[in-house]
Amino acid sequence: MEFAGKFPLLFGADMLAAVAFAVTGALVASRKGLDILGFMWLAILTGVGGGTLRDLVLDVPVFWVVEPAHVVACLLTAVVMFYVAPKVESRYRLVLWFDALGLAFVTVAGTVKGLDHGAGPLIAVVMGVVTASFGGIVRDVVGNEQSVILRREIYVLAALLGGSTYVILSTLVLDRIEAAVCAFVVTFVVRGLAIVFGWSMPSYYREPRPIDDPTRRDRK
Amino acid sequence: MEFAGKFPLLFGADMLAAVAFAVTGALVASRKGLDILGFMWLAILTGVGGGTLRDLVLDVPVFWVVEPAHVVACLLTAVVMFYVAPKVESRYRLVLWFDALGLAFVTVAGTVKGLDHGAGPLIAVVMGVVTASFGGIVRDVVGNEQSVILRREIYVLAALLGGSTYVILSTLVLDRIEAAVCAFVVTFVVRGLAIVFGWSMPSYYREPRPIDDPTRRDRK
Amino acid sequence: MEFAGKFPLLFGADMLAAVAFAVTGALVASRKGLDILGFMWLAILTGVGGGTLRDLVLDVPVFWVVEPAHVVACLLTAVVMFYVAPKVESRYRLVLWFDALGLAFVTVAGTVKGLDHGAGPLIAVVMGVVTASFGGIVRDVVGNEQSVILRREIYVLAALLGGSTYVILSTLVLDRIEAAVCAFVVTFVVRGLAIVFGWSMPSYYREPRPIDDPTRRDRK
Repeated sequence: MEFAGKFPLLFGADMLAAVAFAVTGALVASRKGLDILGFMWLAILTGVGGGTLRDLVLDVPVFWVVEPAHVVACLLTAVVMFYVAPKVESRYRLVLWFDALGLAFVTVAGTVKGLDHGAGPLIAVVMGVVTASFGGIVRDVVGNEQSVILRREIYVLAALLGGSTYVILSTLVLDRIEAAVCAFVVTFVVRGLAIVFGWSMPSYYREPRPIDDPTRRDRK
Repeated sequence: MEFAGKFPLLFGADMLAAVAFAVTGALVASRKGLDILGFMWLAILTGVGGGTLRDLVLDVPVFWVVEPAHVVACLLTAVVMFYVAPKVESRYRLVLWFDALGLAFVTVAGTVKGLDHGAGPLIAVVMGVVTASFGGIVRDVVGNEQSVILRREIYVLAALLGGSTYVILSTLVLDRIEAAVCAFVVTFVVRGLAIVFGWSMPSYYREPRPIDDPTRRDRK
Repeated sequence: MEFAGKFPLLFGADMLAAVAFAVTGALVASRKGLDILGFMWLAILTGVGGGTLRDLVLDVPVFWVVEPAHVVACLLTAVVMFYVAPKVESRYRLVLWFDALGLAFVTVAGTVKGLDHGAGPLIAVVMGVVTASFGGIVRDVVGNEQSVILRREIYVLAALLGGSTYVILSTLVLDRIEAAVCAFVVTFVVRGLAIVFGWSMPSYYREPRPIDDPTRRDRK
């Protein structure tokens, strides 16, 4: 628990993020009708994916190699979900809500760890946003779902606001724990309201028309 | 060959895994009607993908940067396959068999290297399983094939059993080479039997029904 | 700017590559009708993706963490494109041309940095080619576009020729700046001609026939 001792805040955020995202990975595995090992695989991939990218980019030891507890948590989550998921898998909104939880935790963890390792405020926030969405992206790509990032409703904005909240509060007024809690709440509430009310941001969307692309010879 | 000298076992496993996966990458390239450089690209991506992720996560020098032999092997494999593949590409089972070979080699290499660099048994096995399937996942995602992980037959289980075999045997009785050979055999045989008999594990699969998801507005 | 001071050539190439690829990411975001944060997300992912992989594999600090200027450039590009893209998004060729620019810059940056950090000529060129196509691959995979690598026209070849040009010229005759300029020109011209004339390399392509694969049970 040496790692956990040094960064209890990070340890907790990573752990909760791993479990929340592992649930979404398992739910996707359930919708695909995978066996229990498929559940475990997608749970681990989604649960630790974002934090792994973060640690690689920051060039620090990958958290789940230092502290296996996160992987154990993902595996246990997968086992539980394997028996629970069939009863809830049709409720796609559950994926959205646990994804929102994971989003909030990873945003905080990413921003905190970014700042802790000397990244500037901007990079720290970008780190939080990118790693927060990475796990879900991988889950959706591997699981043949539509990338969460391609949905129009508010998703990245929640992470952006949450990360900024931590940067501002931790530098100005509060200690890191309080700032992290506020950042978590901001991210989760914004994302949650977007889910409830289907909030989306304006876009210049136009119906895609057949693209003039002589080089496009799709063979699929 | 300094790297090869230090870890002859790893060098061999990585090399054989690179060739086996390079063959599958080239076969996919062939099915997509790519040119020879497309063959090389997919062969390298699939051949060294898993080991690259493993080395990044373990924070050790990436094996093919230290020892270019693996990349050369992938390139030669791609060239050979460019002329051979058209005669065999319809035999999709060939992809499965070489994929099984690669799976066994990467599982061993991942588990061995994980243990060698101080990861605990659990993490070492997870390392073996994840890196073993990573190359195939990337190949399938980039090549627009269905992710190997989404197939229901036994795949991850083979890697799991193989990795566990190495951990147990190498700690208890045998020297690392013997343990690695046993682990390879276990992985390949289990996966091979699954291919031959279409073995699959039980799942709670239900036919996907239209998902109630107000946020889903697919634009493709 | 310490990093920029040490490698002005790399700094410039990375910056221009980031902007060029950010434009393509934003154009894809525009075709998907994403909001401005979706633009920023895809712009950053595409703009710094290739260089990030390169730095991770070379085990050097990731360039945009050391020097945030690249991320700022991607963000500004995304904002501009958010308002400009709708007027041009139907011109898919614009994606191709900016992608060609990015390809040329990343190829140079990848090869240069590979050599600078002690990789052999072969690995340096492979580094250039792989990282040059990586950003576009990620953009296409996340954006649900056909992977650029699956198109048959000349793409990888351009990067291959460009990278080789740098290796040869820099070792034999010219200083690194001149060699880099030549490599850029070679890559961009070859790729550009391929776009203009739809050049493609020979392949053994056969019309895909239903694959005999008993293990394939697609559930989507």
